[in-house]
Amino acid sequence: MHRVRTSPGTLLRLVHLQGPLSRAALAARMGVNRSTILALTAELTQAGLVTEEHPTGSTGAGRPSLVVRPLTDRAFVLAFDVAVDRLVAARVGLGGRVLDRRQAPRPRAGADLETVVDVLAGFGRELAAAAPGSATCVGAGASYCGLIRPGDGTVRYGPEIGWVDQAFGAELERALGLGRPVAVGNEAHLGARAEFERGAGIGSPNLIYLHGDVGVGGGILVGGELLGGDGGYGCEVGHMLVNPYAGRPCLCGSRGCLEAETGERALLEAAGRGAQAGWEAVREVLVDAAAGRPMARKALAEIGDWLGIGVASLINLFNPGVVIFGGTLREVYAAAAGPIADRIARHVLPVSRERTRLRVAALAADTTLLGAAELAFADLLSDPLRVAGRTTPVPR
Amino acid sequence: MHRVRTSPGTLLRLVHLQGPLSRAALAARMGVNRSTILALTAELTQAGLVTEEHPTGSTGAGRPSLVVRPLTDRAFVLAFDVAVDRLVAARVGLGGRVLDRRQAPRPRAGADLETVVDVLAGFGRELAAAAPGSATCVGAGASYCGLIRPGDGTVRYGPEIGWVDQAFGAELERALGLGRPVAVGNEAHLGARAEFERGAGIGSPNLIYLHGDVGVGGGILVGGELLGGDGGYGCEVGHMLVNPYAGRPCLCGSRGCLEAETGERALLEAAGRGAQAGWEAVREVLVDAAAGRPMARKALAEIGDWLGIGVASLINLFNPGVVIFGGTLREVYAAAAGPIADRIARHVLPVSRERTRLRVAALAADTTLLGAAELAFADLLSDPLRVAGRTTPVPR
Repeated sequence: MHRVRTSPGTLLRLVHLQGPLSRAALAARMGVNRSTILALTAELTQAGLVTEEHPTGSTGAGRPSLVVRPLTDRAFVLAFDVAVDRLVAARVGLGGRVLDRRQAPRPRAGADLETVVDVLAGFGRELAAAAPGSATCVGAGASYCGLIRPGDGTVRYGPEIGWVDQAFGAELERALGLGRPVAVGNEAHLGARAEFERGAGIGSPNLIYLHGDVGVGGGILVGGELLGGDGGYGCEVGHMLVNPYAGRPCLCGSRGCLEAETGERALLEAAGRGAQAGWEAVREVLVDAAAGRPMARKALAEIGDWLGIGVASLINLFNPGVVIFGGTLREVYAAAAGPIADRIARHVLPVSRERTRLRVAALAADTTLLGAAELAFADLLSDPLRVAGRTTPVPR
Repeated sequence: MHRVRTSPGTLLRLVHLQGPLSRAALAARMGVNRSTILALTAELTQAGLVTEEHPTGSTGAGRPSLVVRPLTDRAFVLAFDVAVDRLVAARVGLGGRVLDRRQAPRPRAGADLETVVDVLAGFGRELAAAAPGSATCVGAGASYCGLIRPGDGTVRYGPEIGWVDQAFGAELERALGLGRPVAVGNEAHLGARAEFERGAGIGSPNLIYLHGDVGVGGGILVGGELLGGDGGYGCEVGHMLVNPYAGRPCLCGSRGCLEAETGERALLEAAGRGAQAGWEAVREVLVDAAAGRPMARKALAEIGDWLGIGVASLINLFNPGVVIFGGTLREVYAAAAGPIADRIARHVLPVSRERTRLRVAALAADTTLLGAAELAFADLLSDPLRVAGRTTPVPR
């Protein structure tokens, strides 16, 4: 964290992530005095980003400290999510609230860049047009289930849709026509950050987020920073090799990858639903298992065992404070926690797991969408006065 | 790196790691002017840590920039290594040169804390006593093959010798009687840093170091920082679960760990030498394989296959710039590079490996020993004038 702690961005980030805070609380968290808070708040108020108000529930005795509240309705981002079985777009207000959304079924394997961009850009324009006149768009971000080149939003590899080197960010930007770039991130990377900032990972800078989609994505924070690796392509937990000699084929062309053994296809085949696909079919397996149907229960035990094998290796490698299951794994984890815990108990060094908690994503189905929103807010939060000053008028 | 870049420590670190440098080169690397270099060098010269001299091989034409050389003979550390088959102690001079060393065979499983500490402390006292009168000891560091609690040098878990919660650092400090703490680190963590600073990993801040001993240790740098995890116990690559259903028993009590499939025991059994143990026996397998003996070749192919499986997962997870094989794996890698490369080609996503190089440890058998020395030099390099001012007289 090299940012100047007394900048307007620091204050705005605090109320954006934690909600309304009193001047006193802000002063304490930022380690500055109240006159500095007063000055920063005045600048942000003038830029139309926060307001000050009397706290609700104040008794009237004494002079309660005013609270600083982010103006959720005034500054928004457009967030896009190429998610499991659906394409989602949302208008997300400062403070992280989803104000409006659109979604469509996601085209399965074979969907081309143009189709996906057309659907998302159409949604984006609709959402922007439906925003109140007083609202301004301060950024756009998108979450995608593949390897993304840092900097330009190119999808280097997205086996689930079959994309290689597709200029997703640039095309979505062009089609949206907002005159500002669309920041693109890997869905699980964004999910990890979102759960760290607003969800089940608050306070856990060493965090592993596993995102179930058709496959399994991973987002890993080491000391609060995303594990990028040399080119930004780290965290590919779905392609850890867990079953090297008898593995199922993986969409990546290999065999025995964690996602091949635990993804949608593996679960549906183990449950005798090999002819089906998609999240609804997975949900039927979960319902069957909850009803005690043996084949569904066996399928979940099997998938849970492989998941446990992968998670055990990850805990030994990363000594994390928390492992979070998101996307479809949120519900799969709930149904397969037993075999996962078994493998962890058998294979993780006691010292390595003494402080590791297992959790499901607190942001539920919106983890990756909210991660894309945070990506879009990054510019504003790093320099609110500059960005709020040059916000784009909403096209109508 | 939050250190002030113009401190004496920055300059001393540069010449300590890179050897003698001209004032001009130092000014360029530190981004300061030559008068600042002059002042810093004067302070370090007065503290007895560096000297300035005319460069060797200067032609005499013009006035060549003086070079600043670390005084290797004046400031030293004691470095200890509980290494494969041996206990090593060394006096290592500023600049990282091993000036004197002692070693003994390492007691195999069952060696207690007292025995190991006695041997190492005896060596340490001998080395200190043999140092010239003008030399001062500025620190002590030790490398150990187990999980080390950050801060106090306690071995939380060391399956190879069977230690659990042993106060190794404190006991070695007491037995040495130098009046200064002994910093302790995991052998592979220290090896990773040493290869990054002085070896095959220079310039690669995203680095995986695999250290073969009886088992397999790992040291992983992410953005130049060691992957510590929540409690400092990350990087346990040896306990990645690579063979979950037909795995060999591991010293940790689990089965199918990477070190169970690739460690000394696995190699010797595959080579028909199940009754033997130790590095000499491993070396015989390597010699046999080089001579074309089928059983040894088959054993190395098998171990190489499992190593490749583990390394493939690690590259997908970390997208590293370099993977370095050290300890016994230095020679095992040289003999099994083929099967390792095969697994990487089959299982690593092309995008994830496009910049990953495979290397053997450049510091050869001294990687972990030099890592322990760097740990011991850390205090001096962070504040040379303070530490050089209160160095301990050598006990005689």
